[in-house]
This record gives sequence, structure tokens and C-alpha cells, in this order.
Amino acid sequence: MLNNNGIASIVFFALILFSTNETNSCPRCNLTYYDQLLKNGHSTLAGQELLNAIKNQGIDPKQYAESFTIPEPPSAGSFFPQQQNSDFLEIINRDNGLQLPPTSYVPQNIKPDTSVKIELYEAEYYIGKGVMYKGFVTNGTIPGPTIIVDEGDIVEFSIHNKGTIPHGASIHSAYTQTSKYVGNIAPGETKKVLFKVTQPGVFLYHCAPGGHAIPMHVLFGQYGMMVVRPKQQYKLEQVLNKKPDVELYILQHELYSSGKDAIDGNPIYTMFNGKLFRYVEEPVKAKPGDYVRIYYLNVGPNKVSTFHIVGILWDYVYWQGNPSNQLNGGQTVLSGPSDSWVIEFRMPPDEGSFLMLDHAVGAADRGAIGILKCTKEAVTPVVVTADGITYTEQQMSEFKSKIVRNVAPFEPGTPDVDPVAVYGPETKEVFVKIIGNSFYPKTIQIAPGTTVKWINEDIFTYMEGEFAAVHNAASYEGPESFNSPMLGHAETFSFEFKKEGDYKYLCSPHPYMRGAVIVTSESGAGKQGSSTWLIVLSVLSLSMMILLFVKVNAIRKQIKE
Amino acid sequence: MLNNNGIASIVFFALILFSTNETNSCPRCNLTYYDQLLKNGHSTLAGQELLNAIKNQGIDPKQYAESFTIPEPPSAGSFFPQQQNSDFLEIINRDNGLQLPPTSYVPQNIKPDTSVKIELYEAEYYIGKGVMYKGFVTNGTIPGPTIIVDEGDIVEFSIHNKGTIPHGASIHSAYTQTSKYVGNIAPGETKKVLFKVTQPGVFLYHCAPGGHAIPMHVLFGQYGMMVVRPKQQYKLEQVLNKKPDVELYILQHELYSSGKDAIDGNPIYTMFNGKLFRYVEEPVKAKPGDYVRIYYLNVGPNKVSTFHIVGILWDYVYWQGNPSNQLNGGQTVLSGPSDSWVIEFRMPPDEGSFLMLDHAVGAADRGAIGILKCTKEAVTPVVVTADGITYTEQQMSEFKSKIVRNVAPFEPGTPDVDPVAVYGPETKEVFVKIIGNSFYPKTIQIAPGTTVKWINEDIFTYMEGEFAAVHNAASYEGPESFNSPMLGHAETFSFEFKKEGDYKYLCSPHPYMRGAVIVTSESGAGKQGSSTWLIVLSVLSLSMMILLFVKVNAIRKQIKE
Amino acid sequence: MLNNNGIASIVFFALILFSTNETNSCPRCNLTYYDQLLKNGHSTLAGQELLNAIKNQGIDPKQYAESFTIPEPPSAGSFFPQQQNSDFLEIINRDNGLQLPPTSYVPQNIKPDTSVKIELYEAEYYIGKGVMYKGFVTNGTIPGPTIIVDEGDIVEFSIHNKGTIPHGASIHSAYTQTSKYVGNIAPGETKKVLFKVTQPGVFLYHCAPGGHAIPMHVLFGQYGMMVVRPKQQYKLEQVLNKKPDVELYILQHELYSSGKDAIDGNPIYTMFNGKLFRYVEEPVKAKPGDYVRIYYLNVGPNKVSTFHIVGILWDYVYWQGNPSNQLNGGQTVLSGPSDSWVIEFRMPPDEGSFLMLDHAVGAADRGAIGILKCTKEAVTPVVVTADGITYTEQQMSEFKSKIVRNVAPFEPGTPDVDPVAVYGPETKEVFVKIIGNSFYPKTIQIAPGTTVKWINEDIFTYMEGEFAAVHNAASYEGPESFNSPMLGHAETFSFEFKKEGDYKYLCSPHPYMRGAVIVTSESGAGKQGSSTWLIVLSVLSLSMMILLFVKVNAIRKQIKE
Repeated sequence: MLNNNGIASIVFFALILFSTNETNSCPRCNLTYYDQLLKNGHSTLAGQELLNAIKNQGIDPKQYAESFTIPEPPSAGSFFPQQQNSDFLEIINRDNGLQLPPTSYVPQNIKPDTSVKIELYEAEYYIGKGVMYKGFVTNGTIPGPTIIVDEGDIVEFSIHNKGTIPHGASIHSAYTQTSKYVGNIAPGETKKVLFKVTQPGVFLYHCAPGGHAIPMHVLFGQYGMMVVRPKQQYKLEQVLNKKPDVELYILQHELYSSGKDAIDGNPIYTMFNGKLFRYVEEPVKAKPGDYVRIYYLNVGPNKVSTFHIVGILWDYVYWQGNPSNQLNGGQTVLSGPSDSWVIEFRMPPDEGSFLMLDHAVGAADRGAIGILKCTKEAVTPVVVTADGITYTEQQMSEFKSKIVRNVAPFEPGTPDVDPVAVYGPETKEVFVKIIGNSFYPKTIQIAPGTTVKWINEDIFTYMEGEFAAVHNAASYEGPESFNSPMLGHAETFSFEFKKEGDYKYLCSPHPYMRGAVIVTSESGAGKQGSSTWLIVLSVLSLSMMILLFVKVNAIRKQIKE
Repeated sequence: MLNNNGIASIVFFALILFSTNETNSCPRCNLTYYDQLLKNGHSTLAGQELLNAIKNQGIDPKQYAESFTIPEPPSAGSFFPQQQNSDFLEIINRDNGLQLPPTSYVPQNIKPDTSVKIELYEAEYYIGKGVMYKGFVTNGTIPGPTIIVDEGDIVEFSIHNKGTIPHGASIHSAYTQTSKYVGNIAPGETKKVLFKVTQPGVFLYHCAPGGHAIPMHVLFGQYGMMVVRPKQQYKLEQVLNKKPDVELYILQHELYSSGKDAIDGNPIYTMFNGKLFRYVEEPVKAKPGDYVRIYYLNVGPNKVSTFHIVGILWDYVYWQGNPSNQLNGGQTVLSGPSDSWVIEFRMPPDEGSFLMLDHAVGAADRGAIGILKCTKEAVTPVVVTADGITYTEQQMSEFKSKIVRNVAPFEPGTPDVDPVAVYGPETKEVFVKIIGNSFYPKTIQIAPGTTVKWINEDIFTYMEGEFAAVHNAASYEGPESFNSPMLGHAETFSFEFKKEGDYKYLCSPHPYMRGAVIVTSESGAGKQGSSTWLIVLSVLSLSMMILLFVKVNAIRKQIKE
Repeated sequence: MLNNNGIASIVFFALILFSTNETNSCPRCNLTYYDQLLKNGHSTLAGQELLNAIKNQGIDPKQYAESFTIPEPPSAGSFFPQQQNSDFLEIINRDNGLQLPPTSYVPQNIKPDTSVKIELYEAEYYIGKGVMYKGFVTNGTIPGPTIIVDEGDIVEFSIHNKGTIPHGASIHSAYTQTSKYVGNIAPGETKKVLFKVTQPGVFLYHCAPGGHAIPMHVLFGQYGMMVVRPKQQYKLEQVLNKKPDVELYILQHELYSSGKDAIDGNPIYTMFNGKLFRYVEEPVKAKPGDYVRIYYLNVGPNKVSTFHIVGILWDYVYWQGNPSNQLNGGQTVLSGPSDSWVIEFRMPPDEGSFLMLDHAVGAADRGAIGILKCTKEAVTPVVVTADGITYTEQQMSEFKSKIVRNVAPFEPGTPDVDPVAVYGPETKEVFVKIIGNSFYPKTIQIAPGTTVKWINEDIFTYMEGEFAAVHNAASYEGPESFNSPMLGHAETFSFEFKKEGDYKYLCSPHPYMRGAVIVTSESGAGKQGSSTWLIVLSVLSLSMMILLFVKVNAIRKQIKE
């Protein structure tokens, strides 16, 4: 007879934890993909196109990967034949003689006027209102330090990769080749580039690790503002004949809770200088009549902003911060991602709060509001830079004990941010997208017997020696194991989950990408379960009835006899 | 023995309507939150930050709330120590002597050149194609009246709150403190501010009720265009040496069907001057050769537009409508939210329709298209303002009897706009977001035993005396009642729905925010229901079999005897 | 007794394929709607508004439809009374005497300086990475040919409709009435317009079939770049005193996988000149020191871009490509849909890769990245136009055999792009939206007994002789048939699917719009099925027990006797 244990064994699956596959970090791992490509590449369209790209770019992936992972920092430009400066003397001389600024080119061995050093790594960062963000940081903060130099300066810009994955830099104030010097920096490595800032203005700098994941690091927090102060005076300085009383550097930026939201341009938060409503909490103060200059940069990296101050009309604004691009008056400045302005005005002769905000009010509502408080008590001149906030270890540890929400684009955050996507048993196949270096949905709940189909939506390609956007899905915990091959764009991998339990998986070349699958007969099994019991019950009833029938007949026979 | 009634009682829950909790309207109610904050604030990160904000802004919430709710309208600026004008004489004199326009500051007691008065309230407004919109209006319409003044005018701008919640104003043509005069106006109250329009151009004015819900009222319909006509001639007026034949004021704006869509920037409709395809239905007419000037304002409040006219290239356009910011030619003007242009061109010497549209064609498709019809029969000069359409009570009542769709951002509209979000029984926990002063999804259907977790995604903070974005969920109808505490950002409240029935709830501080929960065993209960019956049936069968077995055994015994 | 076949017949429904309804193509079919409108129009609000639009626009739908479908191409402007040129002589003379460029008007019978001819049709186009796109093309490609003319040229622009639905053109470089000449071209027809290009710059041309579906054809691929070279030199040409070494035409554009995504502005891909990462695969090459000019056009048609090149600062940029709108320096140019720039700079004196990208990095990640490779080996001068890629039939057939993904906005593509939307049996009513000339979701899976409610979200209206955005849902395959009336905005049609099977349907006026419904008891019927069995089993058990009870009682009686 069927006993409870027998029945239970129908619905019970042992949870077996097994250790993860060996995981590798890029770029070396990508060679696996290159081998795969050489073998099968000619049979797929994307494969042919990648091989064309490799040929046409003239960089060999193997050679690149080998030089890249040398632990000693290579000298600048070592992957590329170093040009002789003398080759370009004619161009340099021509440019120096023109009626417009020369490019930023300088020989890499001359003495700089000023040196800048930043450290790039992966970390958690507190953004206010009880929210912790796990992404990429510069000197530990989002945004990184505000770098202020003077037009004509020769700048030495050093970048140290303090993290565990490749980082790099794109420096928008540099009008010269930088990618080959600082475009791709291995963990532990330091690289630098020298350039002369020949155009004044407000510029973005951000992490851009070579061909690989260029959009990823700027999407997830690694950026800062660099201002080149002009030799030419801004107009309001001429008119008022004095320096600004308030110099305010505002970097507007967005954060995303998943790769999908980052690619789609749906930020969870937007803010000024690294904290939600930072200048609501600590208003910037000015006296009535003060001369205010704002250095404004919209990092985006997706949304357009229209910066506005309630109660203020601009006196003058300068497109990209260049004093020669002056516009007069106006209520807003429009900035796409990486657009910038210098904005100048006077505080009116009245006290009160002047609200600074992005008039694309969805962003204002998500954090991009601050107060410029006009009061006779203000102490000016004052400079407020666009640096993120540096917290002590003690502060961070207090924050961690009290947070209400974890935003972690590459792995499941708190469930309010990354709720479990629940599929009923009527769903036989579920797509999980790989997009923006993260899985989407990050955690799914399915019924046993459901097939999960991972599809690589990332489409970046081969550039500067690296394959990008090549992902897989490899389990590291759960009753059963799976390990997909490397997937190119729109390629899929299917796995049918037969056993109940909690599965965890990652992407082998990017092991920080994490996902989970919960397989439970609860997914439609309030009924599935009871159905099983009912079948047992009914079969039992029927058997007993047959038994009774036989018995009763026996009795009847007996009586008849 | 179990009868039908007994069984029915297992699946039947009486629907008990119970009266709502006491609800309060802000800002006074927010004091509840302040008390809560004083008690527990130091234990949460957001709490500490809010207390910092209160301290740093120097406005006491209690004092503010008390002055705010005095039924008599306080005199301008009464919450703040009124500055002595003489304090700022030096600044005023300096500004008047500069080679650029002074700010808009004037003493609040001088005689204005012109007076403007608007009324703000909550109402329904018909937007064409059978669609009724329930949001915020100015003088009963969306957009409000077009206000046209001359550069140098001293304007008295009065605002009457005819509604039931706080309103206020942000007036972009005013280069002076306005928030403290008209930033927060209680129901029934009238406030005003005086200012001098010193910069010509095309400006936005919109509702901005102080610290509270600043983005909300502009998101949901309260805005209009204000034009300051310049002393300096626009270039085409100089070239043609005449006034425009056609002056067309176009305000482009978006409407949203929920707070979530508003914050995410996903409008359901986009239109010119308050009606879908308004100028397709009533084309604007011009004669061949006519001089046309368009005052264009993109309210947004989220989307960027590129205004274009098929068959027209601009002669001149002026950024923000200021004649000193002239650009030549071009096919489009790009406008973020609150950006504006004056656009000038000539009608070509040919008849036909010229289509005006936002070339971000998603918006064109959702309503932002009109016809500029070039015909010898046109009667010009003509002025078409950007006022919304005023309907008579009779018209509105006809509309209401015939509408096909209700768009209501804060409560469930017609089901085609706000479909019921249905969750199967496999979903044990459902998140309902509180975002943009509305619940999302607005109506959900769940199985009994499901837990609903409300999460407050709104993050606005303390500003100008008010707490904003503090919400809760409190039932006012249904078999069981629930009433969450006030929730700060990312805080949650859970309630398990055990009893079947229809539940309705609201947010106590913002009772216009409405949501619904339908609890039904139909949610997967085709089976759950039949399962219940089957269990009863099976238990019944088994009981009867045991009875029979006992009986039969008794018979056998009897026979044996 | 119930046998298996009997039970099976409860859950089994024969699949009966039946032939499609007669389908019509617009515009003639729209007359059906006009008749419907005349009968019922006054009873609905949208109906009244449409009748107003027809009256106010002064074009009769019947007359229009009749002239439109005449197979012989009508002479230009035949739907409209041809104006006498002499009527406008005064205007023409005035415009020729002004200190600004005249409009583009020329009589339609004069000799052109240059002739352009394009062919418009519906087709598949390969966009790289194994992805095939099915949409609208110009000369077989996306984008169409780059058209380059000189300021002052009289251009004859001919358009041949090689497709099966109406096409047309909007030509942004023409400052004159064009809609009535080339706005609406019937299948097989050729139309043309003559105009003089009087403003230099970078312009969009795109398909715009009259009143009908104006946004649709530009959303789904029919566009190209037209450049009017100025008489005035660009500044850098003056400064360097030479022609550019590299002339690069970049057209950035987005593709969408559904009408809903197109209207919402959520592209699946963004790219330069018709292929994903086209210039990563084939880098554009320049020598150090080269003078580079980029003609940049953002088609959108929804997203804003900020074009940037890593390592480059602009020397000069010109808004809309007009040399009189010069800005100096800068890191980006911001472009809404249909915005354009000419961008000029020098290659720095150093070799390496310079990455060109949209700094709205979601777009960069979806394909809008290319390499500008600086190398001494480059051969310049070089011109790279913005033409799409023309593939041979053989190439296309190879692509088709190897593709990994089909993107087809109007019908279901591959399931990774258009996954089946699965609804459990707890969902009694499902909305299918009709939006952007496609169904959404395109394929749904429901349980028998579920009602599907189609709702027309399209809202376009009557314009230039056509009704637009009038749709229906008519089955052409499946166990049962349905055929909705024509639906206006927000109108619905409901159909309850009782029989299991696969249904296919289309929109009669736009038969390329396709959708599918899968009705299966698998949608929650693993249980429904077993429930049926259990009921049978239980009923059986109970019956037998009653039988037994009766029998046993009989025995007892018997014994007693």
C-alpha cells in the first residue's frame, strides 16, 4: 500500500549543492570565444562579421590578451608600434600656426604642469534615503573627484585599477589619442596619458575599458567632471567686473538597477553630485545680489535634462562651457548625456529658497532637486564642487546595518528592487535575457518541467583587441547543474528544470553577473499537490470499494448458501 | 452530516463594507509624520537625513503647518521674516546700472502695469476622441490661458486655489524670488506676487505647490504659456518690414494615465493646446506669402520634442524666444521640457496643407500633429493662442455621456487604461508600488492567502516646510480592513488577504489616491474551488466507506453468529 | 459508462482551417469607415470630430479615394485645383528681393539642374549579427541613398511606389508645398516634385504617405540623408585653406520590433548607416593631421542622441549644417529626431583608434558605435556616404538561411523577439492593443473560455483625404472565426475563445498586420484536465458507494428476514 513517504517522494527532490564551474575574468577568457569563433565562425553571420572586424582592425586577439595580462604595467602604447614624434612634426607645426586652438597632443615624455591620479574599482556606495548602490566607483565615490585645470595646462592623467576587472578612461577634455594609452587597464595596473588642455569648458571623464564594456562602466557609476578654466573671461565677469561669489559644480547623473533598465534608459534614481536630494539636505547658500556661476554637466548616461532654477533667469549661458559660445537669458539649458554648460546669473535682491531641478520632472522626482538658499547670512565667496561624498568605514558600516534597499545592477538586490518573476505552470518556456551585463529577470520562479531559455541580447563586438558582450549561464548552486556555451548575439541556451530547489548561476567571463531560479511545485502546485493527494485518495477509495464489493458479494454468496 | 451550506461557508466570506479611516489633507497631516520622525527618525538613515534637511533649511514644520492652515489668506511672505527693501537698495542700484537686463525684483506694494489672475483646481477635462482626463486644471482648462505681456511691464500675478488640495505657482518669466509668495496656496486661499518682466521670450508657468508635490501638478496638467514681447524687433519683422500675418502660440504637452508612467516618462497622449489633433480638426489658415510667427513651448514634462513643419524651412528661430539668440534656417527646433523658441518663416507661393508635428514621431502619433493650411481664402492677420478649450456645462455633460475612455492618473480609470493585474495562485506575494502619487498597479486580482506588499517608491523629501512623498495604504471598503503607517522611501507594508471580496483603499494624506484589490478563488480557483469540492467529496466517500466497512463487518459477524 | 474517448471529447476540439476574409488595402477600404461614420458618426464624440475635420479641411474622402486609385499616375497636384503661378508672382518677386534666401518654390514645369529618383517598397533587409529586419525600404536599403546637391540647384525629386501599400515623401530640404505633389503615391504609381534648394545643410528625407500613417513609414525604415552643399565655405575650410580629407556622412537611426515599442520609443537596435557596428567591422580610416568633416543626421525617429568621438574635440560645428550657425569647440552635438550638424575637426598627430558613438550609451550599446582609425596607411581623400548596404540576391539568400533572429514589427518575428504572452486560467479577459499598426502582444496563449478584447490605441485621424488608424481584427485561420467592425480610437471588440486550437488574424485595411491566439487547456489545464478526471472518478466512487449501500441494506434486510 502507498504510504506517506512514497507519496512524498513524488514531490520531494533533494537539494544538492555543488560547487561552481571554474570562472575566468576577461579578457583572457574571451580567447575561448575566439577559438570557438575560428572553428565555427564562418558558419554564422555574426561569426563572419567578427572575423572581418578582427582583420580590418588589424589587432590580433591572442597577442592582445597575452600582453594585456602581463602583471607588470606595460609602458604606454606598448600594444601598438610607438610612432616617432618626428613623423608628425609637420602636423604639429601646422596646428600651432592656425587661428584656432591646437589639438591636445604632446609627447608622452615631457614634464606636465599638473598631475591627476584616480583609482577605479568596484564597490558599494551610499546614495541617501537608506539606499545602498553596488556598482563602479572612482576614488571610492560616485561621481569621482572634480578636476579643475587651466586652459593651456599640460596634464598628466594617471589611472590605477584597484579592482578585479578591467577599467580604463575616456577623458573628454583631451583632443588627442587616449584610448591606446589608458583605454584598457588590467586589475592592479596603472597607466597614464599626457595631454594639453587647449579648449576651455566643462567636460566629462569616465571609465571606458577599451573595446570591452565601454558603455557599461559609465552606465554604472564611473564618471566625474573636469573643468578647463578659460583664459578669456566669461561675459558676466566682465559686466560685473568681479569674480563669482558662488561657484557651484553640478553633475547630474542616473543610476540603474539592472542592465536592462540601463540599456532601455529607465533609471531608478537621478541626482546631483552623488546623493538623492543632496542640496535639499544641505542647501547651497548665497547672499542677495551675489554673482553665481554654475558648471553644469549632465552625465546621463541616457536621459536628456533641462536644468532650471525656480525664480532665476540666466544672464548668460555658454554652450559646453566655452565663453565663445554665449547665449543670452533663458529659463533652461538642455543637455543630452555628456552635454555641459556654464550658467551665470545674479541672486535677486530678496531672500528665500530658489529650487534647482531638472525640469524633465520625472528626474526631479527621482532625486534631481536641490535648494539654492538666498539669505543675508550666507558666507561667500564659496565653491561647491561636484565630488561624491567620501564616507568613513564606520559610516559605511552604520549605513549597511540600516539600509532599506540594495540596488545591485549585476545581481539580485533587495526584493523590492528585483522582485521574483513568478511563472505559473501554464508557462512551459521562459526567456531570461542577458542584457547590459546582467540577467533579466534576475530571479525567476517556475514549476518543475519548465524550460528556461537564456538569450544573449548584448551585441557589442570585437574592438581594440577584445570580444565584448559574449556571455553564458553557468550554475554554481542547486540540485542540478548546467553550463551553457559562450553565446553570441541573439543566441540561446535552453535548460529544462526538472528538480525542485533553488538554483544560482553566473556568467563565466563576468562572474559578477548573477541570477537565480526557484523551481517549486508551489508554482501552480497548491493544486498540483492537492491533485496528487486527491488521486491517491480516489484510487484508495476505489480500491477499497472494489474490496468491499468483493467482500459483500462473498457475503451474499455465503448467505445464499 | 455536511450539507451544502456548511461547504459553502468554507468558500464564502461576507462582504462587509466599513467606513473609511479618518483622512486628512496635507500639509497638516504631515505633522503626524514629523512626530513619527522625532520619535524614530534617528534610527533610520532617511530619518536622520530628513532631520538634517529640516535643520539646514531653517523652517519648522509645526510652525509652517500652523500658519499654512489658517483659513484667512496670510499676507505675502508671512511665513518668512519680511526683508526691508532698503537692505537691497545697493544691489538694486547696481543691477539697474549694468549693460544687461536687471532682475525682476520690485517691491510688493507698487502699482502694476498689468494684472493676471488664474484659478487652480482639480477637475475633469475633455481632450478629444472620446477621452476624458481627470487631473489638475488652470481656469478649468489644460493648458491654462496664454498670458501676453510686454518687456518692462510690472506684472501682478494672482493665484486663487479653487481646489481641495494645496496649489501654487512657478512663473518662469520672473527673475526673482516667487516661491515664498505664491509657492504654496491653501484651498480657498489667494496669493499674489509682483515682478517686472525684464527678459523677452516664451516662458512656462505652472503649478508648483511649495516643497510638496512640485513635480506632480505640472505632470498632471497645470501649466500655460506666458510670452514677454520684446522691445527689440525679431529679425524677420525687420527684413519684411511688417508685423506677422499669422501669430500662432503652440504649447506641446503630455498626459499620463498613472503616477508610474508620469515618473517613467511614458505619456498616453501628447498634444498641441489641449486637444488631440486639435488643428487637424480646425486647421490654422494662412495665405500664400504670409509672414508666420510661432511661439513654441514644449511643456513636456518629460519628453524632448523636435518641432517640424512639412514643406517649411525656418527663416529665423530664436532660442527661448529672445531675439538676441538668433539662428538661421533649419528644419527643426529641439526642445526639452520647458524649452521654447520663436520660429519665423514665410508661406511659400503655393496652396496646400503644411503639416506641423513633433518629429519624435511617437509623440506625433499620440496626438501632436496639426495642419497649417495655405489657401488664398484665409483671412489674416490672425492670432491663435495656446489656451485650452473652455467647454460649457452642457457640453461637458454631453461628453460624459458619450466618452469611450477615462484617464485618471490617481485612481482606476476605464479598464482599457488601467486593466486589472491578475496574479495566479503561484504568486504568494505581490508588490504594489506607490509612485507619482498613485498606486501601481491600481487594481490587482489575487487568490486568497496572497500577501500584498505596498512599497513607497516616491522619494521627495522635506522642503519649504513640508514633507512630501509620505504615503500609506488605508482600506475604506472590503471584507477586512488594513491601515498602514506612513511609509518613507522604500519602506513597505504587508497585508495578507484571507477573505474573498472586493477591497478599496486610499492614501490617508492624499485621499484622491485610490487603489483596489480583488480577492477571488477564481484566481486559479477553477481548480481551487473544485479542489475544495473534491476534497469534501473524497472525505465524504472515505467516511461512507468506513461506515460501510463497519456495517459489512457487523453483518459478517452477525451471519457468523 | 464514460469511456476515455468520451472524456477526451470534452477537452478535444478539432482544428478547422478556414480561408481568410476578403481583405482590402487602403485608402479605398477606408471608405467603408466613412460610410460607417456617416451613419453613426454623430453619435460618438470622435465621430463628430472626424466629420468636423473633413468639413474644415475641405477634402471629400470619396472623391479623394476615387482619384487615388486610378492606376494611371495623375499629373502633379491633380487632386487639388492647380494654382496659377501668376497668382503668386508678387510673392515670388518680394522673396527674391529680400536679404534672406527665397523659398524653394519653382513652377513644376521648368527644367531641373539635377534629378533624383527613389523607389519605395516593403522588404526584408539584413542589419548584421544574424538579424533580418522586415519593414520599409528605399531603393532596397535602410537608409536610402545619400543625396548630395548644391545650394541653388533646382531638383526634380521622383518617387516610384514599387510596393503594395501607399507610400510618399517628406523632403526636409524643400521650403515649399510638397505634400500635394508627392504626399501620397499609390502602388505602382510615380510622382515627382520640383524645388530649388535655397538653404544649405544636412536634411532628412523620408516616406510620408499623406494623411495616412505618416509616422509609420519613418518609424519602420524609410529615410535617407540629403545634403545641400553651401556656397559659403565652412570655417575650418577657410582656416586650413583646403578641402576635407575625410568626408563622412553618418545617419543614426533606430529600429523597432513592434508598433507599441515604436510609439513608446523603445528601439531594439540603433545604428549608423544601416548595420549594427558597421564601422567597427570596417573602420573609417584617416591619416594623422587629416581634416575631417562629418555630416551627421539623427533620424531617431524617437530618441535624442549626443554624438561624440573619444579623443576628439570639435574645432567647429554648424547647427543643421548651415555654415552661418557656427559653434566653437565642444565634446558632443545634441540631436533630436531629424536634427543635424556638420562637424569639423583635425586628426591629432598620433595613431590609434578613435571611437565614434552616441553618448546616450543605451544606443551605443544597441549598435551605434564605429571606429575612426587614425593610421599613416590610410588613403585619403575619401568620402564615406550614408547609404545602406545593397546586397545581392545570393547574399540575401545566404543570410536568410543563417539568420538567428527575425525582427518584424507588423507580425510575429522569432519567439525571442516576440515571445508568446501566456495567461493562466485565472485571467478571464485579456487586452490586445492595436498600436503603431501592429497588435500587442502579437501572440497570446489563453485557456478556453477566455475573452480577448482588442482595443484600438491608434488615434490618428482624417487628413488630406484619408482616414488613418482605423483598424479591426479578422481571423483567417483557426477553429472558429471572428471579424470585428472597424474600430476608432479606444473602441474595443471582444471575442470569447471556446475552442482549443491555433488562431491567426489580421487587420482588414492593413493585412500585413498579423496576430495569433493559442487556445489550450494547457494554460492551467494540467490541473483542469486532472480535475475532470477526478470528478469522474469521484462521481464514480460515490455512485458505486450508493449502489453498495443499497446492496448492503438489501443484505441486512435479507438477513433479518
